[in-house]
Amino acid sequence: MHMHSELLFANDIFYAAFVTGDFRAMDAIWAVRHPVSCIHPGAGTLEGREEVMESWAHILTSGDTEGFHCMDARAHVCGETGWITCFEVLGEGALIATNIFVLENGDWKIAHHQAAATKARPEEPESASKAN
Amino acid sequence: MHMHSELLFANDIFYAAFVTGDFRAMDAIWAVRHPVSCIHPGAGTLEGREEVMESWAHILTSGDTEGFHCMDARAHVCGETGWITCFEVLGEGALIATNIFVLENGDWKIAHHQAAATKARPEEPESASKAN
Repeated sequence: MHMHSELLFANDIFYAAFVTGDFRAMDAIWAVRHPVSCIHPGAGTLEGREEVMESWAHILTSGDTEGFHCMDARAHVCGETGWITCFEVLGEGALIATNIFVLENGDWKIAHHQAAATKARPEEPESASKAN
Repeated sequence: MHMHSELLFANDIFYAAFVTGDFRAMDAIWAVRHPVSCIHPGAGTLEGREEVMESWAHILTSGDTEGFHCMDARAHVCGETGWITCFEVLGEGALIATNIFVLENGDWKIAHHQAAATKARPEEPESASKAN
């Protein structure tokens, strides 16, 4: 349960950096000592830290990320790796995401992110998160 | 490198079950002792083995999975967990997927699958797979 909370907290840090357009915070939450990849909505796979961070630099300076928020985050822990599924909600629209995290020096760092369009909507109030 | 090959092999088993509509093989490749979740294209998150396998029973009996194949699979290993990114190609269309695997009794089992529409297309010939 402890690990689930920490995983959800790392996911919150990821989205805080995302929504506020804080590249330094975004850079700090991505894994350094593990493989890294990323699939943005409708795009192909970005491979490796350099390619992935380059995409975030572009996204975060676009200003398009303001006002969206993470909802219905669900944590799954398998030893020193875990993943979150959650919605990324902006107004009436929503994306659905898989975020894979790995432990580095005791901190959860994100190693893979896939977000994609969905017709589904969060079932829970904004403040609720579940650990599975 | 050995682990990467085994991970790619497990991913092949997953897609062989998928394409041939073999529910027994699909059931056997999903994790039993770890958390399990699944995000089908455009849908919400399915949580837990029962809900996930019910969705596969429905999909595999629909007959809609014939003729598609996995391309450009890339393996990422973090200890006893790993993930694959790959395309699911059917004719001119393609989905892009994240498949998370966990080791159970020495075998890689799938614990999470997200597939979603993409405008991207595989860069590599069908037979090629990369380990990162």
